[in-house]
Amino acid sequence: MFISRVDGSRLLDDVDALARIGATSGGGVTRLALTDADKAGRDWLCRSMEAAGLAVRVDDFGNIVGRREGLDDGPALLIGSHIDSVREGGRFDGSLGVLASVEAVRVLNGADVSMRRPVEVVAWTNEEGVRFEPAMLCSGAVSGRFDQSYVYDRTDQDGTRFEEELRRIGYLGKEEHRPQRPAAYLELHVEQGPELEQVGHAVGAVEGIVGITWLEARIEGRADHAGPSAMDSRRDALAAAARLITSVESLAGGTPDAVATVGRLTVEPNVINTIPGRVVMSVDIRHPEAARLEVLVAGLRRSVEEIAGRTGVTIAIDRFWTSEPTPFDADVLAAVRNAGRALNLPIGSLWSRAGHDAKYMQDICPAGMIFVRSRDGLSHSEAEFTAPDDTVAGANVLLGAVCELGQVVRV
Amino acid sequence: MFISRVDGSRLLDDVDALARIGATSGGGVTRLALTDADKAGRDWLCRSMEAAGLAVRVDDFGNIVGRREGLDDGPALLIGSHIDSVREGGRFDGSLGVLASVEAVRVLNGADVSMRRPVEVVAWTNEEGVRFEPAMLCSGAVSGRFDQSYVYDRTDQDGTRFEEELRRIGYLGKEEHRPQRPAAYLELHVEQGPELEQVGHAVGAVEGIVGITWLEARIEGRADHAGPSAMDSRRDALAAAARLITSVESLAGGTPDAVATVGRLTVEPNVINTIPGRVVMSVDIRHPEAARLEVLVAGLRRSVEEIAGRTGVTIAIDRFWTSEPTPFDADVLAAVRNAGRALNLPIGSLWSRAGHDAKYMQDICPAGMIFVRSRDGLSHSEAEFTAPDDTVAGANVLLGAVCELGQVVRV
Repeated sequence: MFISRVDGSRLLDDVDALARIGATSGGGVTRLALTDADKAGRDWLCRSMEAAGLAVRVDDFGNIVGRREGLDDGPALLIGSHIDSVREGGRFDGSLGVLASVEAVRVLNGADVSMRRPVEVVAWTNEEGVRFEPAMLCSGAVSGRFDQSYVYDRTDQDGTRFEEELRRIGYLGKEEHRPQRPAAYLELHVEQGPELEQVGHAVGAVEGIVGITWLEARIEGRADHAGPSAMDSRRDALAAAARLITSVESLAGGTPDAVATVGRLTVEPNVINTIPGRVVMSVDIRHPEAARLEVLVAGLRRSVEEIAGRTGVTIAIDRFWTSEPTPFDADVLAAVRNAGRALNLPIGSLWSRAGHDAKYMQDICPAGMIFVRSRDGLSHSEAEFTAPDDTVAGANVLLGAVCELGQVVRV
Repeated sequence: MFISRVDGSRLLDDVDALARIGATSGGGVTRLALTDADKAGRDWLCRSMEAAGLAVRVDDFGNIVGRREGLDDGPALLIGSHIDSVREGGRFDGSLGVLASVEAVRVLNGADVSMRRPVEVVAWTNEEGVRFEPAMLCSGAVSGRFDQSYVYDRTDQDGTRFEEELRRIGYLGKEEHRPQRPAAYLELHVEQGPELEQVGHAVGAVEGIVGITWLEARIEGRADHAGPSAMDSRRDALAAAARLITSVESLAGGTPDAVATVGRLTVEPNVINTIPGRVVMSVDIRHPEAARLEVLVAGLRRSVEEIAGRTGVTIAIDRFWTSEPTPFDADVLAAVRNAGRALNLPIGSLWSRAGHDAKYMQDICPAGMIFVRSRDGLSHSEAEFTAPDDTVAGANVLLGAVCELGQVVRV
């Protein structure tokens, strides 16, 4: 049943073309959700989808959907990813999955392949959650996790609302344009970790997504002049934050398969000769098992109490987002492995320690993911890189799985 | 020889009036150097100086000087302080010294007092060093420590040049308007520490200023996605910074009379789900003895090496400013104590652990300072407070010392 291969150079040209939009001097991209750069990327993508023969529509969250009709008018096979990026992020993260999906459709159309199922290519809005928290906001909305008013009222650091920015860039579409409950969902993505590289596989089938929880700690000390306050009379919010950062690191370091990160931290008043009065910092904790994730959060809360008691600051913890551990669908993963077999390509097997839109799709349909190897496991970095051969191999696995899941009937 | 007392309510009204310019919701002020708020404060001050009978001029650093002629035309007695503030700072810091100096002149003029020496009241530009580093920039320039081009090329966090902002607010005056080498310099200021409160004195004579050194640490790690990177494979710049902050705290905590502070810290890319790739942080270290200050800096450098070696980040240290320990002039301090005696007011004796413009004045003339008690020793804080009685007592000591140092000849 396997019909063809993707055009590797056409796909790599697309990766280069999209990476020029929001390109950074360090070779990465900054294309935060609903910025001018995101709009430019969207405009380019819509033209590319239309050129591939897709019927493009935009829903009320700005999700872009390109449809290829099937012989049946039942639920579609949904494939895709996202094109927003973090600040100074990599050029493959998200983009590869969208572009390989468009390329798959080009191959199907070029070979005049008929499938029972419609195929829809989606580019989800605001997957990264950098500009508007939480991450995976608009796949979450389509899955029913978040309602429209919640999404619209998200604000960025400057207080600008999601809805306002969506309208400003011209991508506030219609509710009836949302992807309907799919027959299946499949997403190709760079691994964002070193496992495939370590075992020597270009491509892997993703067993599921680990649990992730996000917390914010607000540390209130007492701002004071850095000179006259004796060391033992201070309530230094940053000195307390330093202890908390170190204890977050130890907490995860002492638990197998756990990771924990303080990625964001702001100091007030942030002046060289003033003892910091306030620190606000994030904590990101991940583990494949729900129970173990809760143990880690409890450990963090104990550290917070201990540090506050010892240093005289107050620390408030807000646990504002959790994504539960999510195993993917066995049939979708089987289609991925079948495609690898047809290509004579060994397929690795791994869990994702990063969140992806596929997590919310698994809530409403059978879902799965394909990972491609990422050099040194780097991502959310300008230095993120996936080799051309691996990129093309991943796209061919996607194409093969699409043929099975889309139910090819004739070539 | 003591002639009169200041008008306490007139002085306190002035403190209130100036504090309304750049007032914060928390009861403090934000009047960073060369901002619109600083310009408004300057405009108000110039009017107040002129109303007090002073001949006002502005020099090429924006220092404002109001002159009262003496019987002789030799070097002037220079008195004053600064009116710029830190972010969310207190209402007395700096302002009190300038306003009490104007009030002293009003009393002298009201009583038709003649003195041999001219008296000049100065408001120094950019004492705090918050917007343009280093601190005490323009008293340093007048003392010959910094040349004009160095001062003009200082930039704020947005890259805006000092000279540009000085011109923009209309305070770029003439080089020939600088204060000339004074006969003596005397500055009244809030203590910014708890010592006077602890010993129960409203007013103190300041023996000198401790040594202060400022360093910047640039920590370069590796930005990466917070999910897939195992804890032991990370080069997390913020985790390394946390260890450095803790070691700065321990270093000072283990050395009598030392203080050390990390007041400013920025994280890049500062995103919740990205391991920090870069942290830039300040270190402020203070000690009354020059040799001990160097021992502390050497200790910091050892910590930096040890942390870089252990965590795999690189840390570059730039020691960009040092103010040596500076004892004040015995005759100037005697005038302060004589004034206290005439007022029947006990005068405390203490070192300043904060830098002040008087430090640079001591380089070129006999200088001294008067401190008034500050509640809980707080400063660089909206909660900074000096009681009305203490404020007036300090101003009366200043007036008495001015009479002696200005060489009153008749009342």
